[in-house]
Amino acid sequence: MGGDRAPGEIVAGACRAAEELDVDVVLVGDPKAIGDTGGLAVLPASEVIAMDEDPAAGVRRKKDSSLVRAAEAVRDGKASAMVSAGNTGATMGSALLRMGRLKGVNRPAIATPIPVPGSTPTVLLDAGANADCQPQWLVQFAQMGSIYAAERYGIEKPRVALLSIGEEATKGNSLVKETHDLLAAGAPGVHFVGNVEGRDLLTDQVDVVVCDGFTGNVTLKTLEGAMRFMRDAVFGAMVSTPEAQQASEVLIPLLLPLATELDPDSHGGALLLGVDGVCIISHGSSSATAIVNAVRVARDMVEQQLVDRLREAVA
Amino acid sequence: MGGDRAPGEIVAGACRAAEELDVDVVLVGDPKAIGDTGGLAVLPASEVIAMDEDPAAGVRRKKDSSLVRAAEAVRDGKASAMVSAGNTGATMGSALLRMGRLKGVNRPAIATPIPVPGSTPTVLLDAGANADCQPQWLVQFAQMGSIYAAERYGIEKPRVALLSIGEEATKGNSLVKETHDLLAAGAPGVHFVGNVEGRDLLTDQVDVVVCDGFTGNVTLKTLEGAMRFMRDAVFGAMVSTPEAQQASEVLIPLLLPLATELDPDSHGGALLLGVDGVCIISHGSSSATAIVNAVRVARDMVEQQLVDRLREAVA
Repeated sequence: MGGDRAPGEIVAGACRAAEELDVDVVLVGDPKAIGDTGGLAVLPASEVIAMDEDPAAGVRRKKDSSLVRAAEAVRDGKASAMVSAGNTGATMGSALLRMGRLKGVNRPAIATPIPVPGSTPTVLLDAGANADCQPQWLVQFAQMGSIYAAERYGIEKPRVALLSIGEEATKGNSLVKETHDLLAAGAPGVHFVGNVEGRDLLTDQVDVVVCDGFTGNVTLKTLEGAMRFMRDAVFGAMVSTPEAQQASEVLIPLLLPLATELDPDSHGGALLLGVDGVCIISHGSSSATAIVNAVRVARDMVEQQLVDRLREAVA
Repeated sequence: MGGDRAPGEIVAGACRAAEELDVDVVLVGDPKAIGDTGGLAVLPASEVIAMDEDPAAGVRRKKDSSLVRAAEAVRDGKASAMVSAGNTGATMGSALLRMGRLKGVNRPAIATPIPVPGSTPTVLLDAGANADCQPQWLVQFAQMGSIYAAERYGIEKPRVALLSIGEEATKGNSLVKETHDLLAAGAPGVHFVGNVEGRDLLTDQVDVVVCDGFTGNVTLKTLEGAMRFMRDAVFGAMVSTPEAQQASEVLIPLLLPLATELDPDSHGGALLLGVDGVCIISHGSSSATAIVNAVRVARDMVEQQLVDRLREAVA
């Protein structure tokens, strides 16, 4: 029921995922709104937490919402993972309240892959779960992000950096400086390589970038905005004259692989790390393809027992 | 003496500025290193604070550095403004210590123009002067940014927004939420329009965007990194095959105006608002053109008595 293109694209993606990935997919929501499920099972839920609804109030009041019911299905072992393109805050809230926090985790964090063409993505966390953070939480984000980068992208010893305003240990706000000291002193399972800046996110210099959820969210949206702006400007120039249009017929096929690599739909969405279950937060504008990729990541993370690895890491 | 291309490009830019803008330019630095000044006066300074040097220590120890001497020249009325492409922290430190803070200003802030093609730039502040901020400082940034946008871009009633992670007043970290309350309650001279997100920076929705210096600096560098990445990817595709190269001969002239608009060298650099004098911080990689534009902005801001306007605004 969640996302700007629900339920159409979500259901279409679920059907494709079931077929292409050989995974059992259960749809959670209003059976009438869902319509033809192509044979997929439906777990009925009569309520919807809207995209712009207050997350905390929504989760508290709408006990029969698709999000709350999906999280319950994971808690109760009826599903191995949940995937949502809906209200991010409500997805987090549902997962946190119904699945619960992993023992020892201070705060769950959203880990978002930033595509790096020609390389594995850079995992950014926290991408928005916690607007105000403490240094010890960021150390745990570093630990959880390392496990995640290793399990999801097969990176043996992920390079972990802190997002700051200069490479020197003395640069940053007080949160970053304190976290730097903790990470430099050594945190179990974390290969800390120091500070990076915003311009390093799209490079192959680092595998995991840690920051508070406010900075992470502002950074991600800035990145998305800049990419979209440049894409629109370039394609705008390409159709501005008949000659340009002709010339672009040669160039567009050369740019398409890049566009696909940078498309968030290609990357299977973000993961909520630190809850007792696999919870995938897909982009609000998720297409069927985005849902297929999200289900693929969910399946992989369940099979690789990500949650158990995280549990061990923070224990 | 400051900047990656000093002194060559800086001196060349100063000469061009003197000629094109009919402004008296004084070069501050080591006369031997500067070489031929094309007739411009030199204020000798025997020391240089290096780009990667600790700013506070540099300003404290190197009393005969070009930065400290330039700030003194403004303080003593020997110059109307200073322009530097050198160490940003040391430029700020020199200006703050030698020119002093405007009465009533809690903290000076760096105001950086973000180019918006087809519109006036978005002024982002603080872009890095203060990594940790208090709500009241951000309110002053809003006041100073409004004056600056009005004086520099002729915007009658600049729209001021807070950089956050959602438009709602309840979204953000505690600093942003407290600042939102203060601005929503009304701050003299500030036309507050609410929160914006990172993706809104490149649009015409807002004229001044306020944030702490950590967030501002991370955001700016993320933006720069994303733009550079996309530019390199597009130009890379354009030269990847002979056919593409031919096609790009049609497209490049169509993209050049955009590239010029987005080039930081076109925008005259950032201003340090809140010190008792005009202090322009130009990009570290400033070319002669960047220096010409920086001198132009310096001249305009002196002629428009920006510092007096700021003094009145915070009084």
